[in-house]
Order: sequence, then C-alpha cells, then structure tokens
Amino acid sequence: APPALDKGPDMVPATLSNVAAMREAALRDDVAMDIIEGLTTEVGPRPAATAKEAEARTWAAAKLKALGFSNVRIETYMMPAWVRGEEEASIVAPFPQKLIVAALGNSGSTGKKGLEAEIVYFPTVADLQAAPDGSLKGKIAFVSNQMMPTQDGSSYGAYGMARFVGPNMAAKKGAAAIVIKSIGTDRHRMPHTGVTRFEEGVQPIPAAALSGPDADQIERMVKRGKPITMKLLLTPQFNGKQESGNVIAEVPGSDPSAGIIMVAGHLDSWDLGTGAIDDAAGVAIVSAAAKRIMDAGTPRRTIRVLLAGAEEVGSYGGNAYFEAHKSELHVLTSESDFGADRIWRVDFAFPESAKAVADRIATALIPLGIGKGEHPASGGADNALFVKAGVATVDLQQDGTRYFDLHHTADDTFDKVDPQQVRQNVAAWTAMLAVAANAPESLSAK
Amino acid sequence: APPALDKGPDMVPATLSNVAAMREAALRDDVAMDIIEGLTTEVGPRPAATAKEAEARTWAAAKLKALGFSNVRIETYMMPAWVRGEEEASIVAPFPQKLIVAALGNSGSTGKKGLEAEIVYFPTVADLQAAPDGSLKGKIAFVSNQMMPTQDGSSYGAYGMARFVGPNMAAKKGAAAIVIKSIGTDRHRMPHTGVTRFEEGVQPIPAAALSGPDADQIERMVKRGKPITMKLLLTPQFNGKQESGNVIAEVPGSDPSAGIIMVAGHLDSWDLGTGAIDDAAGVAIVSAAAKRIMDAGTPRRTIRVLLAGAEEVGSYGGNAYFEAHKSELHVLTSESDFGADRIWRVDFAFPESAKAVADRIATALIPLGIGKGEHPASGGADNALFVKAGVATVDLQQDGTRYFDLHHTADDTFDKVDPQQVRQNVAAWTAMLAVAANAPESLSAK
Ligand SMILES: [Zn+2]
Ligand SMILES: [Zn+2]
Ligand SMILES: [Zn+2]
Ligand SMILES: [Zn+2]
Repeated sequence: APPALDKGPDMVPATLSNVAAMREAALRDDVAMDIIEGLTTEVGPRPAATAKEAEARTWAAAKLKALGFSNVRIETYMMPAWVRGEEEASIVAPFPQKLIVAALGNSGSTGKKGLEAEIVYFPTVADLQAAPDGSLKGKIAFVSNQMMPTQDGSSYGAYGMARFVGPNMAAKKGAAAIVIKSIGTDRHRMPHTGVTRFEEGVQPIPAAALSGPDADQIERMVKRGKPITMKLLLTPQFNGKQESGNVIAEVPGSDPSAGIIMVAGHLDSWDLGTGAIDDAAGVAIVSAAAKRIMDAGTPRRTIRVLLAGAEEVGSYGGNAYFEAHKSELHVLTSESDFGADRIWRVDFAFPESAKAVADRIATALIPLGIGKGEHPASGGADNALFVKAGVATVDLQQDGTRYFDLHHTADDTFDKVDPQQVRQNVAAWTAMLAVAANAPESLSAK
Repeated sequence: APPALDKGPDMVPATLSNVAAMREAALRDDVAMDIIEGLTTEVGPRPAATAKEAEARTWAAAKLKALGFSNVRIETYMMPAWVRGEEEASIVAPFPQKLIVAALGNSGSTGKKGLEAEIVYFPTVADLQAAPDGSLKGKIAFVSNQMMPTQDGSSYGAYGMARFVGPNMAAKKGAAAIVIKSIGTDRHRMPHTGVTRFEEGVQPIPAAALSGPDADQIERMVKRGKPITMKLLLTPQFNGKQESGNVIAEVPGSDPSAGIIMVAGHLDSWDLGTGAIDDAAGVAIVSAAAKRIMDAGTPRRTIRVLLAGAEEVGSYGGNAYFEAHKSELHVLTSESDFGADRIWRVDFAFPESAKAVADRIATALIPLGIGKGEHPASGGADNALFVKAGVATVDLQQDGTRYFDLHHTADDTFDKVDPQQVRQNVAAWTAMLAVAANAPESLSAK
C-alpha cells in the first residue's frame, strides 16, 4: 500500500528559514572532503587494534582540535586483535590456475604449508546448512551465493549470511576450511573481506572470500562435473589483547539539562583499502556537520562527535563508549556508516512527544531529495546500545546501490568518493542537527 | 573535412544476398562464446613460453579439429622467457602503507631483499626524458601520466610510452627502479602489466605498474612536499630460451592460385587474468567466422586461421609464422586483438585493383553499424610482417572505450565478455570473409 499522506507539520517559520540557509551553505562544504582526503592519504588503512588505528586517532584528534571542537580526547580500551597473514589460493585440478582470495576477519590459519582438499559446492547457505554432519570432513566448503545491489542495502543481510555464519556452520560440520563468493555486487577480481564469527568452543577454520569472477570460474568448473581440488594458504594470527580507542569531540550546548546529541562514524577500516567510503566518509560527514552547527553559534544541546574504533570487528569502540558514558543524558544518537553516496530517505525512532521535531527535520530535508520512510529507524553499529536502551535515533539513509561494489575491498579508496554527494550528506546532517539541537521540545520519552 | 561520398560499389546481387544471410545467421553464433568460455576456464592464464601456453595449444588444436577444420597443426619455436616473481611495494615514509603493483614484462629484479629508495616524480615521460643524466642515481623514477578512454584506442600509443620506453630511459639515467601509473582507464586497484623493452646493453632495472588509485595516492603525497620513500620487491626471472608455438588450421579453398587469406588472434595471455578479452575473444571470433565459411561450402580461397603464440612479449608467434610461410601466396591477412566489444569501423589497405572487393565488404557491414573509415588499415601485431611486405589487410576496428579498463589486468576474465557484441564481431568477420574468400577479382597488387 502507498504511504498515507501525513498532514503537514506545525511550521516554525523563523527556525526553518535559518535551517534552510545552513543547509544551502553546507552544499558548498569542503571540510568533509578534506577530512576524507587527509585520513585516507596520510594514514591510509587502519585496522582495529593496530598501530595504524592508533595513528588514525592521533590524526583525527589533531584535526578536530584544529577545526575548533571542544573537549577533544582519546579514550582507549583493550580488545582481541586479529591480523591478516599471507593468503594464496589456486585450483590444483582439473584446471590448474591461481585464484584471488582474502581471509575473513577471525579466520583460522592453514599453517605455513597450506592445505589441499576437494571442494564441496553449495549454491546457498541453506544448502550448506542442509549438509549432513560430518559430510564435510577434510573438505573445503564453497558457498557461492551472489548478492545483487539494493538501494537500502537489504541484500547484505540476506546474502551476507554466507560470511556471517557460513564459516561457523562449516566448522561444526567438520570442514577443513571454507571459501565463499565475496559478499559484493561488483564483477572485479577484488575479494571482499569482513568479519565472521565462530561460536564459543568452535575452533576457527580457515575462511576466505574469493572475488566474484573467481567464484564464477569455480562454478563453471563445477558444471563440468569433475572433482575440484583447491590449495589454500591463509596465515592470519590472533594477537591477544591490544589497545584500540575512540576519539571524542564536542560542541558544548547552552542547556546541559537538554541532553547530548551523539553523532558517530568509525575510524577503523579494513586493511585492504584505505577505508574511504567505510568509513572515512562517515567520520567526515558527522564532523563537518557538527562544525557547521558550532560555527553558527552555541546550540541548545551539546553535540558530541564519536569517532569510534574497532567497528569492523565487533563494535568494540561503540560499546566501550556506551559503557563509559551511558550515565550521561543522551537524547539522540545517530551514525553515518554506509558510504559517501547521497542520502535518499530519512527514518526516525523518536518518542511521540518529539514527533513535531521529526516532522521539522523531514521538512528540512525535502529540498535535498530526501523523503521520509515508512518504518522506524534502527540506528547503526556504533549507537546500537543507545537505541536498545530506548534513546531516540534518526537514520539518514545513504544510497547503497554501489556501496557493495567497493565495501571491504582494496578498491575502497579516495577516488571513489563523489564530492557533490558528500556535500549533500553534510547538508542533510547539518539540517537534522540544526533542528534537533535547537528544538525546544524534549527529545527523550522520559 | 567530411569524407567524400563514394559512388556506390558495383553491386553483385547474388553474392550480397548470400553474404547477408550468412551475416544474419552469425548474429546467433554460439561457437565464439563457447571457445572463450572454454579457453579461459579450462586453461585460464597462458603466459608466453610457459607450460600453460603449451596447454592452450593442445586445447586449441583439439577444439579446431572438433570444429571440422583441416590441416590443424602446432608449429613450435624457441624464444626468451620471462616469468613473474614476488611483487610487493609500500610507502615507507612519510605515510606508511601498502601499494598494489605488478612487474612489467622484462622487468629486472630487486633481489629477494627488495630495495628502498626515494621516488622522483615525473608527471609525463617528457619530464623523465628531460631529467639530467645521472640525476636518478639510486632513486625510483615515478611516471604518472593518466590515459583516458578513446574509441579507437589511440590514447594507448600516446600514454603507453611510459611503459614502452620509460623503463629504458630511467635505466639509462641511472635509476635504481621505475614505477609507472598503470596504462589503463579504470579506477580499480588493478595494476596493468605489459611488456617493456630495454635496449641492447642496458641492464634491465626493476619496473612495475602501480594501479591507478595507488598512483593517485602517491601524487597526493607528492603535493604535500615531503620526500617519499618507497620499498619495492620484484623478483621476476629470465628463464633462458623456452618453447612457444602457433596453432594453425585451414578451410581449404577450391582455387589454390587465388591465394591464402590468413586471419589471426593470439593464444597467449598475460598471467594476471585469464585473457578473455586479450585475446581469447580474437581467437574465438576468427575461428567462429572461418567455421561459418567452411560450413557454407568450399570457398574459392583457402582461409587459414593462425592462433599465434607469444604476441604479448614481442609477436614471436606472428613473426615465426611469417618466416615459415612467407613463400606461400598470402593475399589478405587480418587480426582480431582489441577485445570483445562491437566493431564500429572498417579500414582497408587493398590494392587499387581490389577496390570493388573492399566496397562490397563495406556494404555488407553497413547493417551491423560499421562505417568505412577514412584512413588505410595498418594491421596488427600478428600480421605486421605481411602488411610490411605489401599484402592486403583489413581492420575490423573494435570499440576500445572500455578495453583499457581491463587490458593486462587480473580483471580480464570471462564475465567481462558481452555475448551480443561478440556475435556482432563474428557476423562482421563472416561477412568480410564471405566476400573476400569468394571474390573473383585478384586481391594482390602483383
Ligand atoms: Zn563501516
Ligand atoms: Zn565495514
Ligand atoms: Zn592482445
Ligand atoms: Zn595484450
């Protein structure tokens, strides 16, 4: 059914015209692009709990100070670290040739000698699930589902299961290793890495993503009906507990009792690319928008920028921030972590008492080509615990159509970022923050 | 000036209607796609003078026999072999991070320990050329010109100089090594390999291509004005003389005195991809078109299919074929080696006496969207010596707009081939051969 037409929001003309001016000015923003360029060039890849991630914190704290933010600080925590090793794969028989692979985060190691085994082909995770226990003993499971692009990114959840749970499933069925078709939508020989998880008590097996064309190649071999032998070498390591951390900065508000608005992106990135769209973009967009609010004068509410560490491997930064700061009154939290392309939809999870604020935000976004969605906002990894705790959230949904062409690959680099779309993001975040930070209404249900 | 309107060719209605039927039938061809799929899947990468190239010869000879060709044979020759080794690069200072590189064919080795040196940036080859002798001593030259796409591929010649002659130039100026921005038009982290050449007496230095985004990254660092140190590890080897070879097949003609029409593609490929567009496509297109002539009945002239070896590293196969067969009367030679995309233009280098044949070919190509060009055909690498010797040639020019997105990269794989465009190629080659093989006129100037 088509959405019911809302009756118009209560108009607040003076505020809206102010918001409009800030929004239009943000369409000429250069701060966000400067941050993306600097972080991806001067730091580059910044995997969680490594020296590069620490370098990113130093870089970001200096940048936020230079931009004029208050209370800029680094808050560290310890976390388990996993680091990539060598990775090689090839078909040994019947058609010998090299393949391009990348280990998944938390993958086990094949040892330095690698392993050679027959592959067992599963078109989908459901087929793997249906394989009898023990049937994979000594084999390499190969799950080859093909994700297609979606604007809202929903196909990631469905097809990503091959990465999220496939390795654990294969391990429990006795597989020696697992390879999956990359969870991605491109046709380049770029494997998509990403974290996988093994249940407590399940020994991690070697687990890797093949690029799409490499998985296609094996599918063509499978059709020829002969047994296929693969050689796999993956030598990642678990490095014990290492330091990671968050970078925090503030635009202090005039009314401490009105609560904090927290906006987040994540500083860490996968190691294969330079993490431009994931998530230098989010870091840059929320920082640039917060700076615009700061430069426009003191807002009613404090805006706190959280540049989280270690999102990729389990939201360690977001969770550490929650534990450290949950006693402070957060009235709204929001995350930017879906690339650098334009925002096309806005979703809210606001208390009924703040419905007018949501309406004013939605109205302010209309000129940017952003319509209000029909479902509640769900937040992101870095504000998940606040959302779970009932704090209001708003999702400024980015266009995900090409996100999974690049996501978690070597191709996630600065040149993929479109400055005009980044500016549209900054404009949307600026408008949202301008309304929310200054709203006279309460934003919390309590 | 716009081209002068030709007066219409002498029409040969019976022949043209026959050609039209063959052309239309070829638009439903499946043979070419089957060859591309088979060669790229069952053999995969097939670098010159390696066991994989030998495997490709065996595969191709069996395929041509199965398709019904006559006199299918392999003709071998010896040639110098170069093989890729390890390859790694990184920026050591001021912004440490890994880079993605591929050695150029004929690159020297850094030795197993690699080398670390300051880079000297040259925007173009002309800038490298202008560097004073000795000024590069102990340095890594970095030439970063950016090729743009052209339909006729002409930008390859202009920008490719960085690869063709840059390494020799840098070596003569004392450079320890050279890296270039890939000669390519994509924005993926895929280095484009390809052959380079060192003059007699010039010791090969390590020479590699950086992917476009990696070269961009260094350019951004260069703008920051600090010295940049690079670590480079390249361990390719010269393997002495090894065996390579050509595969030859025929459609015997009814009139030996009318001469041979030779059509060529090359069997070898670079090692990074599976050589789908370069040049399984050419191999498949000329073979499929020749088969269509064969299946339509005995042509007047013999059609000889040459699947040449070792084109990539210096046209060893095409040259060996010329030496072995130049005494046989070749009246027309033509090559397909510019991918798998549609043919958009036809160029001729025919003797004046055969102008009517060229006109009939051009007329037969009009329904395929192929117009006659204004300049003479120049042939390709595998028929170069025949063209030089004055034998007629025709260039069925393929659209090169996206060719250099893929050329000589890991991304040159089967999924990049568009079946409909391949069929248009087969239709054009079939029409050309149907006219030329049966033309009553002489095709040679003699
Ligand atoms: Zn992310
Ligand atoms: Zn991510
Ligand atoms: Zn070629
Ligand atoms: Zn080539």
